[in-house]
Amino acid sequence: MTRILYDLCGIDEGLRFSPYCWRVKYALAHKGLAYETRPWHFTDKEMLAFSGQGKVPVLVDGEETVVDSYEIFRYLDRVYPEASLLGGADAEARARFFKFYAERNLAPAIIKTVMMDLFNVVAPQDREYFRETREKAFGRTLEEVHAPSRGLSQLDQALEPMRARLEEAEFLDGQAPAAADYLVFGAFMWARTVSAADLVSNADPVYGWVERMLDLHGGLGRNAKRVVDVEGAY
Amino acid sequence: MTRILYDLCGIDEGLRFSPYCWRVKYALAHKGLAYETRPWHFTDKEMLAFSGQGKVPVLVDGEETVVDSYEIFRYLDRVYPEASLLGGADAEARARFFKFYAERNLAPAIIKTVMMDLFNVVAPQDREYFRETREKAFGRTLEEVHAPSRGLSQLDQALEPMRARLEEAEFLDGQAPAAADYLVFGAFMWARTVSAADLVSNADPVYGWVERMLDLHGGLGRNAKRVVDVEGAY
Repeated sequence: MTRILYDLCGIDEGLRFSPYCWRVKYALAHKGLAYETRPWHFTDKEMLAFSGQGKVPVLVDGEETVVDSYEIFRYLDRVYPEASLLGGADAEARARFFKFYAERNLAPAIIKTVMMDLFNVVAPQDREYFRETREKAFGRTLEEVHAPSRGLSQLDQALEPMRARLEEAEFLDGQAPAAADYLVFGAFMWARTVSAADLVSNADPVYGWVERMLDLHGGLGRNAKRVVDVEGAY
Repeated sequence: MTRILYDLCGIDEGLRFSPYCWRVKYALAHKGLAYETRPWHFTDKEMLAFSGQGKVPVLVDGEETVVDSYEIFRYLDRVYPEASLLGGADAEARARFFKFYAERNLAPAIIKTVMMDLFNVVAPQDREYFRETREKAFGRTLEEVHAPSRGLSQLDQALEPMRARLEEAEFLDGQAPAAADYLVFGAFMWARTVSAADLVSNADPVYGWVERMLDLHGGLGRNAKRVVDVEGAY
């Protein structure tokens, strides 16, 4: 059986920067499940037509097609219950909060910090689509969204609970990483792949966690191609 | 056996405004455990000497004395396992985040909004102590900390993940409230008891949750005395 993950790519096919796809790659690695990725561009809508929608991640697991990063976590826990990601029902209810914390607190701060870096890695054929959809969503131009010092200060504040938690534990989920860590870390991989900006200082407890997350699963994150590795791109 | 909770009070003995004590009152109600409270002032340090420290909440449960709101949650779950607050180990790891989210994201925003209201309810004999310790901690005067419009805008941002979660579920912990809800709601009771300020608009999903939390356990929060109920205080 082949397990396939459709994974957003940028100017270079090896440059994979979707925070949602990163969640899924960590989740698959956590389960020890082998998979192949298929590079996908924002405008390759017909490539995903079989999934009934037009966004990644899309996981094709034998006969099953699953979309949405959080739904993929649920699917993986159901079909491959070993090495649980979300945990029991009480833990799962709380995992939802980490999803929203990443998407509603961290991502808006990070995007201000790396907006133009992000736009720089979008593949040429996707740029018009990307600009149009994002500017419509933000109600502003990409250039207006880009405000790194404001973004970093917003991020600094948003990271406070993580900082406190990571002062007492190696991972958000305690001694070992699980769904909470992966749901949040996707946002950090997003920034790391598209930008050379330092989001946190190395004295920050969050920094140590980022380093540990990069090393997990054979250096999954650390070995990922970054824009700084693409010649002439940065 | 008498179960006693030492509970911070203000200008009126019935005005109980500590967010940490509110967490514990909700936790005790969640377990269906009867208790009495003892009003305590910030400067009544000798009253707590038996607990080995000088802050509330302090719960005396028969022979046991437990301090710190989160430790009290752990204690209650251990000794009274029915109606779990923190849940299994995986859920508990995530509960820690809600503690820090309330203390490091919500409380700093709320305090800017209600600082002078809060100072107004501090009992006369506690005022000098309160001002001195808080100003030392903030590195600013209370008057400088008080910045309601900045506080509300910071709170608006900090509430984003709660808003998203409460759009899909009645409580942070899902269909029924548990530790995550109580850990966070303490901050809302703190603001509610000392101030008439509206923290969220009634169109906000957080508003509906606050209403549900107020009604829980026989209207525990709704029936609490507020500064607006104390004649001449507001």
